[in-house]
Amino acid sequence: MNIGIFGYGNLGHGTELAVCESRDLHLAGIFTRRDPARITPLTKAAKIFPAKDILSHKDEIDVLVICGGSATDLPKISPMLARHFNIVDSFDTHAAMETHFARVDAAARESGHLALVGAGWDPGLFSLVRLWAESILPKSTADTFWGPGVSQGHSDAIRRIPGVKDARQYTVPIEEAVASARRCGHSVLPPQGKHRRECFVAAEKGADLARIENEIKTMPHYFADYSTSVHFVSEDTLRQEHGDIPHGGCVIAAGQTGLPNQHRQLMEFRLKLDSNPEFTGAVLAACARAVHTLHRRGQVGCITMADVAPADFSPLSRADFRRRLL
Amino acid sequence: MNIGIFGYGNLGHGTELAVCESRDLHLAGIFTRRDPARITPLTKAAKIFPAKDILSHKDEIDVLVICGGSATDLPKISPMLARHFNIVDSFDTHAAMETHFARVDAAARESGHLALVGAGWDPGLFSLVRLWAESILPKSTADTFWGPGVSQGHSDAIRRIPGVKDARQYTVPIEEAVASARRCGHSVLPPQGKHRRECFVAAEKGADLARIENEIKTMPHYFADYSTSVHFVSEDTLRQEHGDIPHGGCVIAAGQTGLPNQHRQLMEFRLKLDSNPEFTGAVLAACARAVHTLHRRGQVGCITMADVAPADFSPLSRADFRRRLL
Repeated sequence: MNIGIFGYGNLGHGTELAVCESRDLHLAGIFTRRDPARITPLTKAAKIFPAKDILSHKDEIDVLVICGGSATDLPKISPMLARHFNIVDSFDTHAAMETHFARVDAAARESGHLALVGAGWDPGLFSLVRLWAESILPKSTADTFWGPGVSQGHSDAIRRIPGVKDARQYTVPIEEAVASARRCGHSVLPPQGKHRRECFVAAEKGADLARIENEIKTMPHYFADYSTSVHFVSEDTLRQEHGDIPHGGCVIAAGQTGLPNQHRQLMEFRLKLDSNPEFTGAVLAACARAVHTLHRRGQVGCITMADVAPADFSPLSRADFRRRLL
Repeated sequence: MNIGIFGYGNLGHGTELAVCESRDLHLAGIFTRRDPARITPLTKAAKIFPAKDILSHKDEIDVLVICGGSATDLPKISPMLARHFNIVDSFDTHAAMETHFARVDAAARESGHLALVGAGWDPGLFSLVRLWAESILPKSTADTFWGPGVSQGHSDAIRRIPGVKDARQYTVPIEEAVASARRCGHSVLPPQGKHRRECFVAAEKGADLARIENEIKTMPHYFADYSTSVHFVSEDTLRQEHGDIPHGGCVIAAGQTGLPNQHRQLMEFRLKLDSNPEFTGAVLAACARAVHTLHRRGQVGCITMADVAPADFSPLSRADFRRRLL
């Protein structure tokens, strides 16, 4: 299977590594809007092309993984490229999902392609576990926690405060809320009751630290409603100790069965990722494998990970799965 | 969807409750080899029929859930009934899985039915998580732990010792092994390095407790290789405090990504079940829903849970899934 990667930021890098790790996947090319001559790919064999030439590579690519942002990139690029390629994207703006899905579906159907949107771990694997919980335990509530992990959006928000040189924000689940979800599945808790925010900030020399801390803690939407702590560190410390992009979280589904509901049934799925983009890229690569398989079986239009049988994410044969993993 | 239940032990009871909890499923009937007149079903509306009359109910049943043991019941019953019904079973004898699969597949294909075998949580949900891990992280090892939970086979083995009136055996994961799996995915550990066995025994009056304890701890295969503890309790205590059938466990998959493998990626799925048969019955009911859906789409033969898209286990429409759970 020949996989193309469109967009070469953190997620593009993660996808490149994942494709190269999978023996059945071949990296057909990486497409970037920057100048290819100035980019050194992570893996030696990778070929880098200008994004604008993508259509001239149609015959070399079975599935194109689109590694762009959900805010402005994917709403434009995914429907456009679904007219010419089978695609996978990691669109994650919940409120705009149906519009995105419908536009990609129309584009893919018209041209006989298959597209999988909303791939990754949330949306993605976490969504599947929430679906398992509802399907198996009608009397259950599922609660999702994110972190400990870096939120890029919140880190950026801190960087925009005058006097801040660099910053890294971690979203951290509140342990009492996790314990309460395990006891009874408190999905009524709002996000600020479930998470706290930890900020590591490198300030400019002579900056008013008290003012910066106050501006962070009172920032509406981002921090004001949360328990927030601010730690000032040097730029070196920020680079050395907070240079990775870890993330993770868990879905906790607590349900009841029996007459009269006397048995508690707990389902919990947890990810602890040293590198969020490398794990997400690995999920996208598995989705690309599935899209290729399903397209060859004749499927077109737009789907999500909930429409894919687990065996189709895998390079294993059905018989090998039964022998080794069932 | 009209669901039949064949076999009315613990698992049959659990399946009955699950079918009655699901608004889209209707319990068409329960079939038992015992005298139906002497059985009171858990749910009022349930109709109980003699097992031998099953074929005269063909037109009333969309999917038949076979609730029997893997040792002797399912190898005979599943292929036989797959000639006349769409079926689901929870066959879990790993070494005989391929033979069972092939025989059920042949029977179902010949008659145009669809069968799903090996349903439940292990084999079942745990198998799917192991498959996710391998599909997403080629450089990973997945380790499975069972318990804390009741092992029926081990409890029976203790009951066969002279002087024992009743017994309950719990399989318990060894915490250090779980922690080690989280660190690096030690799938090289043998079962006895990962689990200990805790036994609660009600002995006959005047029985030689030291002899019983010794016979348990030295029993080959069952206990000799394990760290085993034996607690003597009264029959009342056994009934009151150990009457439920809890179980659970976890799959821990630890993988690496990055150049050169510097990022650890951890995936963990955990079940904590107050009632093993009620949860397993709930999984079987969700599988029955999927079998009905896939059969109506024209699929025949034998499949496992890895062949089912998660959305097909669910009564939700695709659009509702995207809106509510994606």
